[in-house]
Amino acid sequence: MAKFPASLQQMVEQFNRLPGIGTKTSERFVFWLLKQPKEIMTEFMQGFSQLRDTVQVCSRCYNFSESAVCGICSDPRRDQALVCVAAEAPEVWAIEQTGEYSGLYHVLGGVVNQIEGVGPSELRIEELVRRASDGVVKEVILATNPDVEGETTAMIITQALSSVPIHITRIARGLPMGGDVEYADSVTLSNALKGRTNIK
Amino acid sequence: MAKFPASLQQMVEQFNRLPGIGTKTSERFVFWLLKQPKEIMTEFMQGFSQLRDTVQVCSRCYNFSESAVCGICSDPRRDQALVCVAAEAPEVWAIEQTGEYSGLYHVLGGVVNQIEGVGPSELRIEELVRRASDGVVKEVILATNPDVEGETTAMIITQALSSVPIHITRIARGLPMGGDVEYADSVTLSNALKGRTNIK
Repeated sequence: MAKFPASLQQMVEQFNRLPGIGTKTSERFVFWLLKQPKEIMTEFMQGFSQLRDTVQVCSRCYNFSESAVCGICSDPRRDQALVCVAAEAPEVWAIEQTGEYSGLYHVLGGVVNQIEGVGPSELRIEELVRRASDGVVKEVILATNPDVEGETTAMIITQALSSVPIHITRIARGLPMGGDVEYADSVTLSNALKGRTNIK
Repeated sequence: MAKFPASLQQMVEQFNRLPGIGTKTSERFVFWLLKQPKEIMTEFMQGFSQLRDTVQVCSRCYNFSESAVCGICSDPRRDQALVCVAAEAPEVWAIEQTGEYSGLYHVLGGVVNQIEGVGPSELRIEELVRRASDGVVKEVILATNPDVEGETTAMIITQALSSVPIHITRIARGLPMGGDVEYADSVTLSNALKGRTNIK
């Protein structure tokens, strides 16, 4: 019973580390790569090298950036009085894709999670308090997920900002587009009722 | 509406090329990578580099190998009289994993497929005929898939080998382990009946 060549096997193991990718899928990736022109692998290597060497964390908002201060923070057209607090960078890009937000961001670096041992001190809450106290910021929008960890984190941030004279808001909770009143869970439905808006 | 940093975006596009991987999954991979120590990316690069530079095709059986002749072909304990014909390299490794086969292989490089424009001349059939005519080979096992393309390819190979004085066999078709006679399709069931084996 022969084994994969070592260099093939090690690449299977590399892909196997990616989130949600098992051995069978890793093997499929490697066999696919071996059927492509060799340039594809070179391009992957260049991609990794570029990602590793140019992506850093913005010193103001902690979002991923290619410069010390990111494109959003350094854009004078963005509303400097508005700071949206996100758990991680992917949330920032999701909000950017709505095209509806023109303020700044603050990436926490996670949410409070007792099981995983992430406490408030692991998050960039002090940095947020400092930013929010600069006299320019007027509103902080808490955009953590509406789940136990996200709500806890939002509560902790609210407490931390209690003495800072700014508005604190929370993204709306309610039914998602395409949702179904009949099948919505009661917490969602209850939130949708509490958060009802005026039509007329 | 800000965009991903360029080096992040290009890596999303790289992952997006992998079979079965869409943009959302690619983004997840990239954000996951950015949360890992930088060494992970270096290890990926080394993996790609090793795969690109050391994996070649065995000059005898056309399986992937790290030397001019692969480990299976150069193993004197393998039965040189037996050649198993597989469409692609992954099939070779699947058969190796059974631990039941001790002969050699011959990788065709695909199967005949009219829609994709793959004709018999694109496959390594001539090379197989040459190998099978060496006087050492006694049996060629056709292990292409039991589907239209695999059966057609098996038929074409049988014709190509018609004048070579060797046995040609085909892997058994029947019900897979855990299969269900009641729900099996009639072609499978018909094959299972035709291929029945003696018990007593």
